[in-house]
Amino acid sequence: MRILVTGAGGFLGRHVARRLLTDGFEVTGFDLVTGSMPDISWVEGDLRDHDAVATAAHGHQLICHLGAIGDVYMAAEHPALAAQVNVVGCANVALAAEAVGAKVVYASTWEVYGKARYEPMDENHPCAPDHPYSITKLAGERILLAADLLRRVPVISLRLGTAYGPGLRPNSVFRVFIDKARRGEPITIQGSGLQGRQFTHASDLAGAFSSACKSDLHGDAFNVVAPEQITIKQLAEAVVARYPTEISFGDPRPGDAPPAMVSAEKAGRLLGWEPLVSFEEGVAGLMDDLEGGG
Amino acid sequence: MRILVTGAGGFLGRHVARRLLTDGFEVTGFDLVTGSMPDISWVEGDLRDHDAVATAAHGHQLICHLGAIGDVYMAAEHPALAAQVNVVGCANVALAAEAVGAKVVYASTWEVYGKARYEPMDENHPCAPDHPYSITKLAGERILLAADLLRRVPVISLRLGTAYGPGLRPNSVFRVFIDKARRGEPITIQGSGLQGRQFTHASDLAGAFSSACKSDLHGDAFNVVAPEQITIKQLAEAVVARYPTEISFGDPRPGDAPPAMVSAEKAGRLLGWEPLVSFEEGVAGLMDDLEGGG
Repeated sequence: MRILVTGAGGFLGRHVARRLLTDGFEVTGFDLVTGSMPDISWVEGDLRDHDAVATAAHGHQLICHLGAIGDVYMAAEHPALAAQVNVVGCANVALAAEAVGAKVVYASTWEVYGKARYEPMDENHPCAPDHPYSITKLAGERILLAADLLRRVPVISLRLGTAYGPGLRPNSVFRVFIDKARRGEPITIQGSGLQGRQFTHASDLAGAFSSACKSDLHGDAFNVVAPEQITIKQLAEAVVARYPTEISFGDPRPGDAPPAMVSAEKAGRLLGWEPLVSFEEGVAGLMDDLEGGG
Repeated sequence: MRILVTGAGGFLGRHVARRLLTDGFEVTGFDLVTGSMPDISWVEGDLRDHDAVATAAHGHQLICHLGAIGDVYMAAEHPALAAQVNVVGCANVALAAEAVGAKVVYASTWEVYGKARYEPMDENHPCAPDHPYSITKLAGERILLAADLLRRVPVISLRLGTAYGPGLRPNSVFRVFIDKARRGEPITIQGSGLQGRQFTHASDLAGAFSSACKSDLHGDAFNVVAPEQITIKQLAEAVVARYPTEISFGDPRPGDAPPAMVSAEKAGRLLGWEPLVSFEEGVAGLMDDLEGGG
């Protein structure tokens, strides 16, 4: 089975591509620039370009669609770009998948729900995102699921928890805290630090893509989030425990999603997904990795 | 006050532009091609083109944003185009409005709700559209409301009922029924004909735009739908009463939104909106208009 992985040059895309290789799939990466990963062939292209996506999809039975404007601050700054890449891009992927008869596994996000009406939020929870990132990610999910309904393109959408792990972007809160603490600089928590996140390790998220690729299910969305809710303060404390430095508090960042518990019970039951990396192990591994040169 | 009306060359856009003129606004039309309407200046441009929208917005205090892929069948056929025009277009309008300090009144649709969880559906009803038309219209609404939240662009979204009235597109069910019956051909109802719609006259919808332009409210969505639920069968019967012909039944069209009652109580209370045209009057007026040459 050949899988096209869009966004394969990105943080999570690399984890997914490697995991799929390990699990015996042949993998083609699709991204704006060619990445360097052993045993993966590459196609350079832009998700906004229908023809580029359609050409890249030839000969693939599966498309793992992770390519996106994934930086929430960039999406807020450039909402038209976010709409192009995250919504038009999904339509292009849907059409390419239809043309070659491929199934699509989509990297959605737990942030599609917006403010919690009840907790833990399952997949039936209403979706009411209010940020350009989550608005466009949800619209992309819906465009793909509509293609499942109207065009017989099998689609699974994975609503991923906030990802972390080796290779994380330098502007992620993990990297900002670790990098500062390693240099002995104070760490600034934006807001109270009591907002929680079900940080989910990239290797566990990659496992969900592999499970979804092997599954016969389609036309459905699954929460894929680790069970532990970790506050930003706990994250800061875990970092400071290894690299002692001062913790201070600043203004909250606008656009940060409010905390809410999300249930991954359905992914466990129907996809057999099980998160294996605890937060404690995961954050220690990330610090080890950065000490080793990242 | 100068108002830019996007989609001013379209069926509803023309009604809105005329109404705003009557109500004393200065109106500029923005559309792919220049329309011919007295006392309205025109800018030709494409909503997908950020610079075209930004340039057109100069000197306007208000933007009524009706330009869209508004044909649900075209949106289903060309989802990437629908995403470009309906989502990227809204982001471009939001950015243009921010740059010139304009308020935006957006033509959303009652179809954003998807299947009814309760009826009548008010504005707090969850939105779960499953068709490329309503998915992209909702994403556009949310991009605009996010600009109200994050960029201080005042936005009102009007979730419009299914529009009808003089100037209706030839492929609308009204026109198809009337045109066939006038030629003495049988009318075919797709599905049972018992699906209901709160058909809302274009002149009443235009009145809602005028009210929203004058209102100080922003950051909110309002249902704008007539109270009567009319079945397709009732519509066929109203047409056949004037132009006697046979009514037959065919397969339902995929993608047609399921019927559900929508409440416009909030628009009445907060915008002072009141629908004035009954279905009986409206459909008679439409037939009169078509007899007069359309």
